[in-house]
Amino acid sequence: MEVYLDNSATTACFTEAAQLMHRILCEDYGNPSSLHHKGVEAEAYLRYADETFAKLLKGNEKEIFFTSGGTESDNIAVIGAAMANHRSGRHLITTKIEHPAVLQPMAYLENQGFEVTYLSVDREGRISLDELADAIRPDTILVSIMHTNNEIGSIQPIAEAGALIKRKNQATLFHVDAVQGFGKVRLYPKKMQVDMLSASAHKIHGPKGVGLLYLREGAKVSPVMYGGGQQRGLRSGTENLPGIAGFAKAAEMVYENLEQDVERIYGLREQLTNGVKSIPDVIINGCPGREGAAHIVSVSFRGVRSEVLLHALEERGIYVSAGSACAAHKPQPSATLKAVGVEKELLQSTIRFSLSGFTTQEEIAYTCQNLEEIVPKLRKYTRR
Amino acid sequence: MEVYLDNSATTACFTEAAQLMHRILCEDYGNPSSLHHKGVEAEAYLRYADETFAKLLKGNEKEIFFTSGGTESDNIAVIGAAMANHRSGRHLITTKIEHPAVLQPMAYLENQGFEVTYLSVDREGRISLDELADAIRPDTILVSIMHTNNEIGSIQPIAEAGALIKRKNQATLFHVDAVQGFGKVRLYPKKMQVDMLSASAHKIHGPKGVGLLYLREGAKVSPVMYGGGQQRGLRSGTENLPGIAGFAKAAEMVYENLEQDVERIYGLREQLTNGVKSIPDVIINGCPGREGAAHIVSVSFRGVRSEVLLHALEERGIYVSAGSACAAHKPQPSATLKAVGVEKELLQSTIRFSLSGFTTQEEIAYTCQNLEEIVPKLRKYTRR
Repeated sequence: MEVYLDNSATTACFTEAAQLMHRILCEDYGNPSSLHHKGVEAEAYLRYADETFAKLLKGNEKEIFFTSGGTESDNIAVIGAAMANHRSGRHLITTKIEHPAVLQPMAYLENQGFEVTYLSVDREGRISLDELADAIRPDTILVSIMHTNNEIGSIQPIAEAGALIKRKNQATLFHVDAVQGFGKVRLYPKKMQVDMLSASAHKIHGPKGVGLLYLREGAKVSPVMYGGGQQRGLRSGTENLPGIAGFAKAAEMVYENLEQDVERIYGLREQLTNGVKSIPDVIINGCPGREGAAHIVSVSFRGVRSEVLLHALEERGIYVSAGSACAAHKPQPSATLKAVGVEKELLQSTIRFSLSGFTTQEEIAYTCQNLEEIVPKLRKYTRR
Repeated sequence: MEVYLDNSATTACFTEAAQLMHRILCEDYGNPSSLHHKGVEAEAYLRYADETFAKLLKGNEKEIFFTSGGTESDNIAVIGAAMANHRSGRHLITTKIEHPAVLQPMAYLENQGFEVTYLSVDREGRISLDELADAIRPDTILVSIMHTNNEIGSIQPIAEAGALIKRKNQATLFHVDAVQGFGKVRLYPKKMQVDMLSASAHKIHGPKGVGLLYLREGAKVSPVMYGGGQQRGLRSGTENLPGIAGFAKAAEMVYENLEQDVERIYGLREQLTNGVKSIPDVIINGCPGREGAAHIVSVSFRGVRSEVLLHALEERGIYVSAGSACAAHKPQPSATLKAVGVEKELLQSTIRFSLSGFTTQEEIAYTCQNLEEIVPKLRKYTRR
């Protein structure tokens, strides 16, 4: 049995999205900037994607920009906003548990003379709105808070944060990295007073290499790349049309029966956490129950090295992650786990299980059964 | 009959590349940063691509970086080199006929206090090596010269320029935008003393949304985006694996019988130019014969508006370009055509025909026949 529980790293592409991509690659391959029929045909796919995302986000087509992925979207939002607004101030706010695609641009901006406040999070991975309120200053030009954490699945109070930010400083831009939230909940930037929102196709059964930046009309952002002036000058380069259309198709599909699908995934999560809890000396990180994301379960197994458990599970065909894939190639203790106060001893004993709409009850049962068998064995080996 | 002669805007993807992409999208969809089997499997595709390009360019795998396209490759090369080396100098050199993906980053750097020298070109679109030699100064940190011009197909003396640059200033980095040259000629950066080279997948029957940056080991360049530190820290973000592998497949295929295929395309070009020359008052721009690119033919039709001719050809199923697609959405006289000294009257009367390995003799014959019929008719209408 093959059980893929690393869906927060990346997902299998929907066949329907891949088929659409194939058609655009080989048949409807025009350049949307070309004036002839094949260009017009290509532009229609771009319009389809614009409209799809505008509708899903309750925005308008002019607020939709396509990038090469979540990382680029986050970079345009953070660096682009800082560069475009530095005359109004040089203070930025973010959290300690952001993805590197936000934290590294922040570090770059600190080197450029910007000041960054990093909000702490509680044991369940949530920021404090009071701390946020205290942090906002007249020279705060940007707040960037992720929607759903990629390692522990905690969900931030985005709408409350949005209202608070705009009350304290109308000019402060609010960016939300929703790479792990988009496709899991309904997101309406305007209602949440969010100016910029990042999403990624390959986390929602779309292709790798495509991302989305929602940018509220009127919000001022500089490009990070320059060229032919495509996408209203914000993002130059021939549009990745197969990818963009595949992303739109995947988004349509995940949102079609979203509530029902997410309900089912919450059921699987419960099944998994119940199974895990039957093993002694195990701690589940993040928000419990419906307060956390349906698709992410972070578990610390005392006395077991996460890498060893990962490979033992792999031998049984179960694919999970130690920390997040995004930082897997430079193994260092997770900043997120540290920020939520996971004991030092457990930092290297934590596994992330991430589910998707393709995950089944049988797969979860098989995973629980294997965990119950493997974990005690591994503990015997590593007993001090 | 449908005749696609806009291959310099974008090309049809090879079915083999699209099929490989489909498999990676739906089956081998792992994240190369994941430690388990599916991640390892994904990493193998990345290695396959690294090796393919390293071999084709006679470089090593560590010199190969994947981007979201030619625009991003050019931006990393130009902005990244300037940012990483500004302490050694703030002078840059480029040409007047570069693609916007080089010219716009140069303009951005001018705003940041860098000084840029723009080399002129002769009637055939070629730079003067003497002018280049005179332009290189002790504080010149970067020279960026395109290999093949996207509008008129002129080919620059890259190897001569490389030798010259290194002789005048060993520390000056040399970047070559080879978006229109890669896949049409064999390119060996080290032999040509090129430090950085940009290429794009969708110009060589690969997918849109993927590019390549060759970066000589030891050449210092800063990232333009920050995040998880993928691709040795230069280009963060989950790798676009289907795109990267599709690009590698396409590159393998175009280089398999390159000389033979290019010979055939030169034959088609000759057929096309001979046909065009039979129409009175027509000027062919760029280098004649084998000195120019096989796949690009730029023709000025006196007394005919290029847009009108484009649409008249479109009605017969023939797809061409007025200027280049990259600037099609902001109609303004082409900087390249101006730089090569095309008469003002002809700037808006110029059509680019761009061929590919899929182009046939029948298609060219059909195109010539239609031009001979349409051009005189249109001239009658617009006669002053």
